Amino acid sequence: MTAEVPDLPSGPLDIYRNKASFSWKDMLRFIEGDDIISFKQKVFKALESDPVFARRPGEDLPLEKIRELTFFRVKQLFNYDFLPKHEVYANPWKTVVLNDCLGMYDWAVSMKFNISKEMFRATVLNSGSQRHHKYAEFIDNMTYYGCFALTELSHGSNTRAMRTTATYDANTQEFVINSPDFEAAKFWVGNLGKTATHAVVFAQLYTPDQVCHGLHSFIVPVRDPKTLLALPGVMVGDMGRKVGLNGLDHGFAMFHNLRIPRENLLNSTGDVTPDGRYVTPYKDRKKRLGASLGALSGGRMSVTRVTLVNLKLALTIAIRFSATRKQFGPKDTEEIPILEYQLQQWRLIPYLAAAYALDRLSKTLFFNFAELQRDKSERQSELGREIHAIFCAAKSLGAWTAQRGIQECREACGGLGYLAMNRLGDLRNDNDPNCTYEGDNNVLLQQTSSYLLSWIHHKLHKRGRIESPLHTVDFLDDFHHILESKFDASTEAECMDSAVSVAAYKWLVCFLLDESYKKLQQQRIMGKEEFEARNDSQVYFCRSLSLAYIELVCLQRFDKLIRGEDIQTDLRAVLQKLCGLYGLWSLSSHMATLYQGGYISGRRPAEMVLNAILSLCSQLKDDSVALVDVMAPPDFILNSPIGYADGQLYKNLWSTMLQGPEVLTRPSWWNDFCSNKPSVGSLQAKPGLNLSRNKPE
Amino acid sequence: MTAEVPDLPSGPLDIYRNKASFSWKDMLRFIEGDDIISFKQKVFKALESDPVFARRPGEDLPLEKIRELTFFRVKQLFNYDFLPKHEVYANPWKTVVLNDCLGMYDWAVSMKFNISKEMFRATVLNSGSQRHHKYAEFIDNMTYYGCFALTELSHGSNTRAMRTTATYDANTQEFVINSPDFEAAKFWVGNLGKTATHAVVFAQLYTPDQVCHGLHSFIVPVRDPKTLLALPGVMVGDMGRKVGLNGLDHGFAMFHNLRIPRENLLNSTGDVTPDGRYVTPYKDRKKRLGASLGALSGGRMSVTRVTLVNLKLALTIAIRFSATRKQFGPKDTEEIPILEYQLQQWRLIPYLAAAYALDRLSKTLFFNFAELQRDKSERQSELGREIHAIFCAAKSLGAWTAQRGIQECREACGGLGYLAMNRLGDLRNDNDPNCTYEGDNNVLLQQTSSYLLSWIHHKLHKRGRIESPLHTVDFLDDFHHILESKFDASTEAECMDSAVSVAAYKWLVCFLLDESYKKLQQQRIMGKEEFEARNDSQVYFCRSLSLAYIELVCLQRFDKLIRGEDIQTDLRAVLQKLCGLYGLWSLSSHMATLYQGGYISGRRPAEMVLNAILSLCSQLKDDSVALVDVMAPPDFILNSPIGYADGQLYKNLWSTMLQGPEVLTRPSWWNDFCSNKPSVGSLQAKPGLNLSRNKPE
Repeated sequence: MTAEVPDLPSGPLDIYRNKASFSWKDMLRFIEGDDIISFKQKVFKALESDPVFARRPGEDLPLEKIRELTFFRVKQLFNYDFLPKHEVYANPWKTVVLNDCLGMYDWAVSMKFNISKEMFRATVLNSGSQRHHKYAEFIDNMTYYGCFALTELSHGSNTRAMRTTATYDANTQEFVINSPDFEAAKFWVGNLGKTATHAVVFAQLYTPDQVCHGLHSFIVPVRDPKTLLALPGVMVGDMGRKVGLNGLDHGFAMFHNLRIPRENLLNSTGDVTPDGRYVTPYKDRKKRLGASLGALSGGRMSVTRVTLVNLKLALTIAIRFSATRKQFGPKDTEEIPILEYQLQQWRLIPYLAAAYALDRLSKTLFFNFAELQRDKSERQSELGREIHAIFCAAKSLGAWTAQRGIQECREACGGLGYLAMNRLGDLRNDNDPNCTYEGDNNVLLQQTSSYLLSWIHHKLHKRGRIESPLHTVDFLDDFHHILESKFDASTEAECMDSAVSVAAYKWLVCFLLDESYKKLQQQRIMGKEEFEARNDSQVYFCRSLSLAYIELVCLQRFDKLIRGEDIQTDLRAVLQKLCGLYGLWSLSSHMATLYQGGYISGRRPAEMVLNAILSLCSQLKDDSVALVDVMAPPDFILNSPIGYADGQLYKNLWSTMLQGPEVLTRPSWWNDFCSNKPSVGSLQAKPGLNLSRNKPE
Repeated sequence: MTAEVPDLPSGPLDIYRNKASFSWKDMLRFIEGDDIISFKQKVFKALESDPVFARRPGEDLPLEKIRELTFFRVKQLFNYDFLPKHEVYANPWKTVVLNDCLGMYDWAVSMKFNISKEMFRATVLNSGSQRHHKYAEFIDNMTYYGCFALTELSHGSNTRAMRTTATYDANTQEFVINSPDFEAAKFWVGNLGKTATHAVVFAQLYTPDQVCHGLHSFIVPVRDPKTLLALPGVMVGDMGRKVGLNGLDHGFAMFHNLRIPRENLLNSTGDVTPDGRYVTPYKDRKKRLGASLGALSGGRMSVTRVTLVNLKLALTIAIRFSATRKQFGPKDTEEIPILEYQLQQWRLIPYLAAAYALDRLSKTLFFNFAELQRDKSERQSELGREIHAIFCAAKSLGAWTAQRGIQECREACGGLGYLAMNRLGDLRNDNDPNCTYEGDNNVLLQQTSSYLLSWIHHKLHKRGRIESPLHTVDFLDDFHHILESKFDASTEAECMDSAVSVAAYKWLVCFLLDESYKKLQQQRIMGKEEFEARNDSQVYFCRSLSLAYIELVCLQRFDKLIRGEDIQTDLRAVLQKLCGLYGLWSLSSHMATLYQGGYISGRRPAEMVLNAILSLCSQLKDDSVALVDVMAPPDFILNSPIGYADGQLYKNLWSTMLQGPEVLTRPSWWNDFCSNKPSVGSLQAKPGLNLSRNKPE
């Protein structure tokens, strides 16, 4: 089936659209494919036509109303059931696409829906056993609403230090769930604030003999599904406003010796017999913990995609704005679009290139993950380690790229970017937690560097070959040879070929790996314990190494795409430029290291690279509107007057603004201005001694 | 008088406080002085004791209520009259300090107060003449409430392209103020949304002979002070929610042939006689425009300070958090504060150094500006140019440093940094517009580079000497010699001396100036018009030049402070480290350029610089809590449970959270969860053809 893609409305953006070197519809078909295009259209159209999803200009709701609205929208998603099982089987990628679509509308809706319907459901089924299958029906019809309670108030990254306990009582065949104190309250649990009836709670499992068997997950009922009132023994509440994502009700819970049936233990990694003996198929406790946290791995893949979607939305807004906002010009009488300025191009277009690169990366991650889930061979554990290393770094790269990109887009739109209605603030605020959840970026990057360091150890000390299931580290086998290589492009034009960046990145990863390895050795020789030695090798070493590695992986996967055979010439041409730009722009942040390690020297290489970046930005300028047209959702979803497809930024903005409530009315407190005038100096502040520095009451 | 500084409450932060190498009270006295300490205590105490300024945990107000609350707080400030005239005369710096104090509480309050009381008042008095003095009384007692209307919907940076007109009608001796269309509506006018009775409106002045005399400012009544209703001929309204600063009512206005008396022209730069002739003391129209926009210059100074205050607040929160939050440790049983991690130190402590450096910079800017206002000599115009160049760049440096620093603080506090109650989100959102208003950072930096380029032109072509009133460019006189200099530190310890960074920065500014100058010449030779040539020399050249220059100025002024004679030894020691760190850390972002231009070569210099940065971070770690104690306002003002002075982060957070409204209650829509269950798949989305890509209704 060929999806019919409607034309975009004519307007001021036509100037750039007409100058584009390719058809945006062709690009859309190449990147998404007809099936996905139709599916997205179906979802978008349903949301746009449904009053439950209506946007209200100037909407200004209290927290409880935001939560209510989000709840009703989520409920409506159950009615739509956009992705019945057979469609998922036919094309699993659609689960990601559906999430993209809902997230483009509002991440809180998407997350609130998925936490119960996907994450809670999958955890119960995958971490449990036959006896838990009965839950699926109740989750699917929203009788139960679930959430995932791992983090505690005083512990996030260090999951092993969680202090909630589940003590087995053989007399009643129950587990007693208990929070020792409020610092061990479960925290940051999405859906738990107002809605969840059940939680997957992670707790330290104790058998009656007082032996602790480590962290396990349990299905814990928290609210009565018939009344939504908290169950006895559960103190459950709402964490209140966050910086963003306020439609999602994050909650906390403390358990006061709450009793749950033995069967509520999700027992795939370990079980307790009715008489209280602990049994497990795993011998190694670490491995068991890893398996029981396995449900989190897919999370990083999702986050990578979430950040990309945010970046796409922000770029759509900022680039369309830049193509229609005019300011200054060569003559006093004539102004030019700000997209014509070198500075504006340099601020935005590299992020556009990054969005195309990350789109490819996130897609390939999905297929890697699917491969991991299918693979039951011996290779699985190796594949798992590699995927872990890639995903940890990819999530960090995605989150930071989006966070910086959105900030740049906000600033690039000037004051109008600061108006809430134009959504850049919400995008930044909603994207922000991606930098710290599913693992803090900086902490995750340590996982990646450890993986890479283990390979070099393998090579240097065990003289082993370096070859990984996904081949992302295979080049390290050529380590010594690569370290001797030098930058050898001799013209600016040559630098634009992504092969130049790929070669430089390979050297960079080898160099940083070598340096990090030596740094670690040095720390150990100085007598530092492993914990300290690792910590003191992060900045400028391991951390930079992980980032360089994932940038290389991202670049290579994009590079592979554009070298494929099945691309139209015009599409290939523009994608090549994007890939070249992404490579050089990313590389430019490592330029000092390239000099430091002697990969480049003298004035010329940096000059060529920087000139090539500017030149590619300039070459892509006329394509940039078409490039965001490919990524842009319909205006209703985009929800940003300065970024609508017709390019009528002022008309759209003005009319949205005037539709807000109380725009032209006098404030309710007018008389306190008009009549009750202040008496200047009537209140005399006392001298400031004995000022309390204590917290407010 | 010696101000009594109360002790901070004892608690978990004592560990670090006891390890500090200096007394934070001594540092406070050294930086602020007793008079200022007492004044700040007085203001803070008044706010803390006054119910109008009470904080309410979990407060969740609609926009109109936020505006109302802010209005009442501003009115209360009139009652306090914290800074009566004689106190300002005695110590003008207190105007800045008062603004700091109010801004630390809430920038919207501070801005709403100052826009009328300071900015509007000063503009009316300074841009007007004797006939406008009568306004002062009405402004001071809040009978009139003013605002400043320059920006239009379609024009911000390009002020000369403003299209609002003021046409003189000699028959009635009135000006007719008119907005040709909504794109010329005045926009982004603080106070105009709900409160202002009068606006200083910038409009193109036309005499009856249809000659346009350029942009002039007029006092335009917009609302009836007795009713707060809009006056006939004025369409005035509220722009709605912004990303931050929502207490301040930004508004828009369109004028429909509104008539105002001739006398309302602020006539210091040009006047119209009753019979309609234009008279001006300025011959050059550009100069007149410059003078009439003069009121904006001080704005950049204020913004620089605002950004610094935001950075200080964020650092106080993040560093106290890092000193009390424990996660992981060398042993499984014992966790360590996250401040002990190299990575956390490297993320935060350089920003702490930047805050101390920028504090010094912003203070010296104030005295430079005061000098400019006093100076009536021939030197004034030279001083004005230099101050313009410094202030444009300082504002950009401050805004970006704060924006990035706050983001780093937010991430460094992990999830708890994402809770709205901890204020990091608000700080970021409130700080954000500083990057684009009072001139977009990137646009402002062009002013600075133009200034520097004019000097090098002066030297190379006119063989003139380089010497400026504030001596910030004097070293350029040694241009050729400096360009030949090389990095000559030979140990890590040596690099920590700020002299090393100062020398490197001097070379860097010379190098970038030389490169920018050549780049511009090259563009001209290629046949580009001046407008294009300038635009195409920004990225990697002029823009980097301006940033390097202001970083040098900032570093030098800090460096001068620590080399003064009147500092205690222990204070000097820690300030030297901060100065050394600020210099190296800023310099490290230019490392590639240092290599490129041959100032450094080989592996060793970069290695020394980076090691010195990490070493200084580590040395300053135990001082960092005391260093933020110096900057921190009382807890009531700081308003961030994870950052309170007692360091009881979990107790403070937990109790604040539980005091929020409806934390533990069932949602009002519970029955829509419990009874009205969705019917899965009952709504069938239709295929997506003919999807509208138009904007939402």
